Amino acid sequence: MVPHLVTALTGPINELEQRILDSMPAIERWFRLEWMEHTPPFYCSVDVRNAGFKLAPIDTNLYPAGWNILTPSMLPLAVQAAMASIEKICPEARNLLIVPDHHQAQNTFYLSNLAQLRRIFHMAGLNVRLGTISPDAKKSVTMELPGGESIVLDPVVRNKGRIGVKDFDPCTILLNNDLRAGAPGILEDLHQQYLLPPLHASWATRRKSTHAKCFEEVSKRFGKLIGVDHWLINPLFDKCAGVDFSTEAGVQELATKIRKKHKEYGIKEKPFVVVKADNSDPRMGILTLRDAKDLENLRQAIATQGLGVQDVLIQEGVLTSERLNDAVAEPVVYMMDRYVVGGFYRVHAERRVDESLNTPGSSFVPLAFAESTHLPQPGVKPGASAPNRFYMYGVIGRLAMLGASYELEATDPEAEHYA
Amino acid sequence: MVPHLVTALTGPINELEQRILDSMPAIERWFRLEWMEHTPPFYCSVDVRNAGFKLAPIDTNLYPAGWNILTPSMLPLAVQAAMASIEKICPEARNLLIVPDHHQAQNTFYLSNLAQLRRIFHMAGLNVRLGTISPDAKKSVTMELPGGESIVLDPVVRNKGRIGVKDFDPCTILLNNDLRAGAPGILEDLHQQYLLPPLHASWATRRKSTHAKCFEEVSKRFGKLIGVDHWLINPLFDKCAGVDFSTEAGVQELATKIRKKHKEYGIKEKPFVVVKADNSDPRMGILTLRDAKDLENLRQAIATQGLGVQDVLIQEGVLTSERLNDAVAEPVVYMMDRYVVGGFYRVHAERRVDESLNTPGSSFVPLAFAESTHLPQPGVKPGASAPNRFYMYGVIGRLAMLGASYELEATDPEAEHYA
Repeated sequence: MVPHLVTALTGPINELEQRILDSMPAIERWFRLEWMEHTPPFYCSVDVRNAGFKLAPIDTNLYPAGWNILTPSMLPLAVQAAMASIEKICPEARNLLIVPDHHQAQNTFYLSNLAQLRRIFHMAGLNVRLGTISPDAKKSVTMELPGGESIVLDPVVRNKGRIGVKDFDPCTILLNNDLRAGAPGILEDLHQQYLLPPLHASWATRRKSTHAKCFEEVSKRFGKLIGVDHWLINPLFDKCAGVDFSTEAGVQELATKIRKKHKEYGIKEKPFVVVKADNSDPRMGILTLRDAKDLENLRQAIATQGLGVQDVLIQEGVLTSERLNDAVAEPVVYMMDRYVVGGFYRVHAERRVDESLNTPGSSFVPLAFAESTHLPQPGVKPGASAPNRFYMYGVIGRLAMLGASYELEATDPEAEHYA
Repeated sequence: MVPHLVTALTGPINELEQRILDSMPAIERWFRLEWMEHTPPFYCSVDVRNAGFKLAPIDTNLYPAGWNILTPSMLPLAVQAAMASIEKICPEARNLLIVPDHHQAQNTFYLSNLAQLRRIFHMAGLNVRLGTISPDAKKSVTMELPGGESIVLDPVVRNKGRIGVKDFDPCTILLNNDLRAGAPGILEDLHQQYLLPPLHASWATRRKSTHAKCFEEVSKRFGKLIGVDHWLINPLFDKCAGVDFSTEAGVQELATKIRKKHKEYGIKEKPFVVVKADNSDPRMGILTLRDAKDLENLRQAIATQGLGVQDVLIQEGVLTSERLNDAVAEPVVYMMDRYVVGGFYRVHAERRVDESLNTPGSSFVPLAFAESTHLPQPGVKPGASAPNRFYMYGVIGRLAMLGASYELEATDPEAEHYA
């Protein structure tokens, strides 16, 4: 079950929605049993794309920002989920230190996200402080936020293998920083402090290809459970190590596979692929390849930025068929512990249906809770009920989170000792 | 944290609210640790009374009806809490049988409550059926509800030590029937089926005096935690076994104790006591005694109904200082698992501030979730913020539920084997 969300959506009907709704109790039971075996990655946001003929997660973020976009009516769900999570991980918790992404310390939108996280965990019953690991932070800084709130960022200090801020010794540390530049020593080998999520959930360790493999496994199991081809929810992909883009063979091979699937399902859309840095290097961005000309442009762009040889993930592109007021839109699902607690549409008026919307210029439309007329509607035909559609999005979001859970198990440095 | 509720309430300020708000993280941590030691009674509703000078639970219901009064916006919280509870108790659960109070099988308001419970547990991922244990039920009966929904009540059958309905073998049974008339054999010694809550939570076993003792223990511990006299949240009480009401000594002794407390706190209100059947015998009702005349009336009433000698609980009366549109009102807090998931005001235009409102003629005003302007307001002075007031009510509700948890441990017939 997910929050029932209101939207102007009137997207295409597909068989998947019907299958998912019909299988709801089986799906929920399956998730329950999966979460007994696999620990959820504390919190998570997932970008989902509905192409009409397929529906897939295209980004699984283990350090989600944007909590401020969630509406006040979604907050109690997030708080309750935070309580459930703390109960399981560290019931004796008293003090929580949030470590933000210090590269965004001047961005009031990001700071509002921090204020929202502080609110959620305070309401869940913790004393919360914010500690920056920026090497430039020498003293506490108070930042005013648009709504009249303020945020205090204290410099993190490390002492006897523990981190904290002045006069505040946290038992638990919540990282809201994906550490793309690498894991700093100050966060390593903490002494009897819980670090949530674990350090290997950061981009210092993560690889998009590992996540894709883990999600493929999840999607196969789920496809079997509800009796659908897992391709309907899983983009085809290929990892290419050390690509110098002097050949386009890898891209072509994937495009051929996609064309085959399109033929099988009678899909008219022209296939395309997206290319992403396997370690999520932000300098490379997410590149859409539609034809040989795009590949040439990509080669030039990479050369221009001096990125050199890269490991990349080449993935079947999933276009979005959703729009809000003519602008291209995609839903983003927010989860805490194992629960879907809210979401929003990311909208971008200047992007195409086959391009990434997670770029400057995007805006956000919260998916508010449904009111009385929008309760789940089991009898309604697929595509005609927004709550049913959003239930499906929440399932896809949770599948991607489960994929991340498999991924974190596979990459857990501690686990190797017992392997 | 509790749902943040909107109301027209502008009740009196008291020190308790300030203490509770200031101690929020400590209180939430204490609850977390208590729930590690003590199992919550699955679901629970608590009637709370705010007398201005004290605030106390006056009824702790372990088979709550009235779920239909909760608004759609509260549903996701209830569903999430139901999911959390099922995960802990019976993660492999597939089929749930709800056993309703068959004495209310013709009451559409009660049937709407069943429809809401069915919805909550269906959305939590279970196949749900309703099975009646009425000895008169011979075949399935479909009941139409005002909103266009319908309810099917199937007769419960017992086979090989398991109960179910035709073609439906549940792993879990949810009782929504307090079994005042005694526990029927059909529910006893079930073979590998979870019965929620356990049978000894019913009035076949419960005694109001045992709950009062357990709540007293909880309130003492809580009073110590936040540094207040536990009398502020705990009504004085006395159990009188085999009362024939030929003497008024017990009542007078309690009234003297209450007067002493009123003097200590400078309270002007005239003390009164309430008398309740210790086993919650509905024929006796809840009787308010203000003076010797009331005692005489009580004696006559009991004689008239032929109730004979009764074990009774004599309890300090807690008046309610809350009103909605001039009608006397009291908040009711709804909980699932360990979470507050909603609530409403019970309103009765024809009752006095010192009388029970849980009688025919009462109406209900849902305490809807607060919107953006009603987020928790830590800096606001006590009494001026509805969300802060309701946070306090949620704490009191949870304290009563914790008392019930102590009570169920003390009366657990299984536990005796290990004592």
